Amino acid sequence: MQNLRSKSADGFIRRLRSYVLQRFEPLWAFAARVPFLAKIVNRSIINTAVNTTRSRPHVYSTVSPYTSWVSLTDKTYFARHLPARDPQPQLPDREKVLALFQRPENGERQCPKSTLLFPAFAQYLTDGFLRTEMSARSRTTSNHEIDLSPLYGRTWAQTDVLRTKSEDPLLRGRLKVQQILGEDYPPFLFEEDGRTYKREFTDANRALILDPPLGLKSDVDGAARQIFAVGGDRVNATPFVSMMNTLFLREHNRIAENLVSRNTDWDDERIFQTARAILIVVFIKVVIEDYINHISSVYFRLKADPSVAWPAKWNRPNWMTVEFALLYRWHSMIPDQVAWANGDVASAKMFLDNSYLTNVGLLKALSLTSEQRACALGLFNTPAFLAEVEKRAIDQGRDSKVASYNDYRKAMGLRPADDWSQLTGDPARRRALTAVYGSPEQLEFYVGLFAEDVNANTPMPLLIGTMVALDAFSQALTNPLLSEHVFNAGTFTEWGMSEIEKPQSVQEIVRRQAGRQALDEASVAKIRMTRPDWERTFDRF
Amino acid sequence: MQNLRSKSADGFIRRLRSYVLQRFEPLWAFAARVPFLAKIVNRSIINTAVNTTRSRPHVYSTVSPYTSWVSLTDKTYFARHLPARDPQPQLPDREKVLALFQRPENGERQCPKSTLLFPAFAQYLTDGFLRTEMSARSRTTSNHEIDLSPLYGRTWAQTDVLRTKSEDPLLRGRLKVQQILGEDYPPFLFEEDGRTYKREFTDANRALILDPPLGLKSDVDGAARQIFAVGGDRVNATPFVSMMNTLFLREHNRIAENLVSRNTDWDDERIFQTARAILIVVFIKVVIEDYINHISSVYFRLKADPSVAWPAKWNRPNWMTVEFALLYRWHSMIPDQVAWANGDVASAKMFLDNSYLTNVGLLKALSLTSEQRACALGLFNTPAFLAEVEKRAIDQGRDSKVASYNDYRKAMGLRPADDWSQLTGDPARRRALTAVYGSPEQLEFYVGLFAEDVNANTPMPLLIGTMVALDAFSQALTNPLLSEHVFNAGTFTEWGMSEIEKPQSVQEIVRRQAGRQALDEASVAKIRMTRPDWERTFDRF
Repeated sequence: MQNLRSKSADGFIRRLRSYVLQRFEPLWAFAARVPFLAKIVNRSIINTAVNTTRSRPHVYSTVSPYTSWVSLTDKTYFARHLPARDPQPQLPDREKVLALFQRPENGERQCPKSTLLFPAFAQYLTDGFLRTEMSARSRTTSNHEIDLSPLYGRTWAQTDVLRTKSEDPLLRGRLKVQQILGEDYPPFLFEEDGRTYKREFTDANRALILDPPLGLKSDVDGAARQIFAVGGDRVNATPFVSMMNTLFLREHNRIAENLVSRNTDWDDERIFQTARAILIVVFIKVVIEDYINHISSVYFRLKADPSVAWPAKWNRPNWMTVEFALLYRWHSMIPDQVAWANGDVASAKMFLDNSYLTNVGLLKALSLTSEQRACALGLFNTPAFLAEVEKRAIDQGRDSKVASYNDYRKAMGLRPADDWSQLTGDPARRRALTAVYGSPEQLEFYVGLFAEDVNANTPMPLLIGTMVALDAFSQALTNPLLSEHVFNAGTFTEWGMSEIEKPQSVQEIVRRQAGRQALDEASVAKIRMTRPDWERTFDRF
Repeated sequence: MQNLRSKSADGFIRRLRSYVLQRFEPLWAFAARVPFLAKIVNRSIINTAVNTTRSRPHVYSTVSPYTSWVSLTDKTYFARHLPARDPQPQLPDREKVLALFQRPENGERQCPKSTLLFPAFAQYLTDGFLRTEMSARSRTTSNHEIDLSPLYGRTWAQTDVLRTKSEDPLLRGRLKVQQILGEDYPPFLFEEDGRTYKREFTDANRALILDPPLGLKSDVDGAARQIFAVGGDRVNATPFVSMMNTLFLREHNRIAENLVSRNTDWDDERIFQTARAILIVVFIKVVIEDYINHISSVYFRLKADPSVAWPAKWNRPNWMTVEFALLYRWHSMIPDQVAWANGDVASAKMFLDNSYLTNVGLLKALSLTSEQRACALGLFNTPAFLAEVEKRAIDQGRDSKVASYNDYRKAMGLRPADDWSQLTGDPARRRALTAVYGSPEQLEFYVGLFAEDVNANTPMPLLIGTMVALDAFSQALTNPLLSEHVFNAGTFTEWGMSEIEKPQSVQEIVRRQAGRQALDEASVAKIRMTRPDWERTFDRF
């Protein structure tokens, strides 16, 4: 039997809640079937998750260690949940800390619940708004909303160059595509020389209007790597992210096509903007109903019910925090090797190379990704090729002077840990942590997040899970498109509302895109974030 | 006896509310004295005012006649309370409409309640956030917050050049000033030639960093007019606005001086930012407790209690509407002549000339302004020199395709008017309106606002009063500095909180600035928005 961590610092109420929500399946099945009960349970779970900590506006940002008009309004800085720790205590040597993340050779730990589709979706989602400014890492280029900026760009000018603005009435409202082996993908960013940006994506001074692909070195052939012209600078990072973006690109054009046939008097602009509005809401529904439900350890399946947020005291303008940007570094979920069409490929090799996607096609890529097991979140599981990225994350936490791990436990309604057993049941991990930090009170935030064992029935450890749920609900459901007087057929059209109201998941979107085409149902059914062999365990109190 | 308008379309509940709130003085005096009662009454009046119409986010903006991601997020466009009226009906000839505003020669109508200090404050207040972009009038340069941008500028770069950033520890956190006749004013914008911007306010290309003063023609000598270097492009428009700005400039520096002596280890930046935060809150308190209470027709004096907004469903991000920008054109309150130190001066002559302020000094200017009666808001009362501005307002309403007057009555919970007598008791005005519009159903929004008689005990007609109260409360109390976890001594210091908690009015700020200096108390006592000879009337049901 596995060594289990102690729950003594989780708090009685939280333990009771988990206990009840993870048992009594018939009760939750009944609640889900009675609409008014389902609404109440849904509302109550979401409100509980968000009310774990105090609501926005955040008191502090990374601009200064005190509150000011600038810190409350200048959104080019990250907000922060807790004030800067100033002065910072002496922290352990960075190399020693980095060693805590290192995956042993041929020793990757697998995640019992998640397929690789889960981290792929997580990366696509968070690249849209957790956007550290690379040249000044206390700042951000985020729009602070779930706005599908990886697909549409962050600015009006970027969106503009990604659109066809076709003269053909039947092609109104579309995003640019190219065909590869009979399938739609974004156009390539580079001319055939692999170095020159295509004219259509640059301004009068030949400067790129789109954000340049992150990590793409100037000596790499961008054409051979099939780098796409897309809204986000991280979309090309792996074929898995490109895969998600391609799925939503096609969905945008499918929605636009449907809007055209139902609104023949609308111009390109109106078709485009309405398709975009519908797709953003569809995406938010996938986030909550597919992705968050996968993260959730409980029976009751959550719904993206916009009305939960309407009267909520936590409905305040979104502002991404530096803590949120840090806790989403799920490098340890990436396997060393991925089983692809022609055998295993090293993950590192897939970096900035979309040919892995285009060679197999979107459907096959999605099902291959879903057949691959994700690795487990946590220490001693980061693949070697991501060590450099891990180092930057440790530095960002230190440079941002984030408070201690225990400070965040307290802010999130947990008791501070005073024994390593409250974090992990693994004696080896406890010894390693003791050697580097002494006691949990000395533990820094970034390391603490990943020092915890993953909880039962979820791919997340406790503190990450708490903070992900908090930020996901409080930032997704406050989207302006979901607001009380906007979320209706006046905004989306009747057809758009009916699209939105359909069940939403990555798999459902694939199925919908097939249209009248025959689909390989066996492959489609594989597309899921939860492994088919996952079995619910009955966690102790 | 005066002809009175009919209240038949005001609605029963609203009439009853006005009736009760404008009578039973002992009851309201008692409520004001019992803290928990006062809190409840205050909250209930504010919530009632804001819940008159649906809350933000606004469904539409001036970017497009339909809702889109852009219309919900691009704040360089105005929001709108109601959708665009598209197509617009045939509207009366603009010259005929303009004639409805024209003040007869020597026939100005006076306001029974307000001194000229009231419109002076209103202009200073609204110039901060009702900022139509002059080159593209569907757009705005607003920050959409009460942020004292006329004093501090709209951008970081503007704020920067207005600060001293002094090396002297005792002068930390100050805004730049110059002395004229022994008093502090903002520095001049121009070199002595009256045409060249001072180097300190321009960038590397000699372009002005501050917004250029609106309406200042290039052939006017900016030095002779004593044009100030300030945050807002409308501050120099009249010596009355400059007067308000000078008052708050001095208040900033007084607060900074006090913070320095209490926080000797703080740098220039922290002193500046904390003084600014305190002053913005002081200003918001003046807005509600001096200015809005002057507008209010009822006995109970409202308090700027931040906690009213904390749980409110209307606490949503601010966004200025085109309707709000239109209804604040109070040109008719400006008298033709102003009694100044050396006799009467034509108002038109005071345009863009601060020497009227500096010649008499701030205290005298404030008391002279307060001794002057404001004119009455409404048709047939716009001074000739403002006809051009009135014309632009009519055009902006039409270009923005705002809905009809009756549409806005309905949106604000009033019944649509079907008879001119529901707007005005004046037979001449009714005849003129009939000649131009036929019936109230044809009346356009901008004209309708001013076609109504001013109500009892307030300088406002009904629809303007309703919309001003709605927007004032819902935009002032949602200021991030007033939010639940920010409004405390951690942000403002203990001393700052005690400053904020003092009674706030223009008069009180003048008194506070005197410090240990002897003050001409007779002059100070005159500084008020309400005329000393105003007498409450008992309005009928």
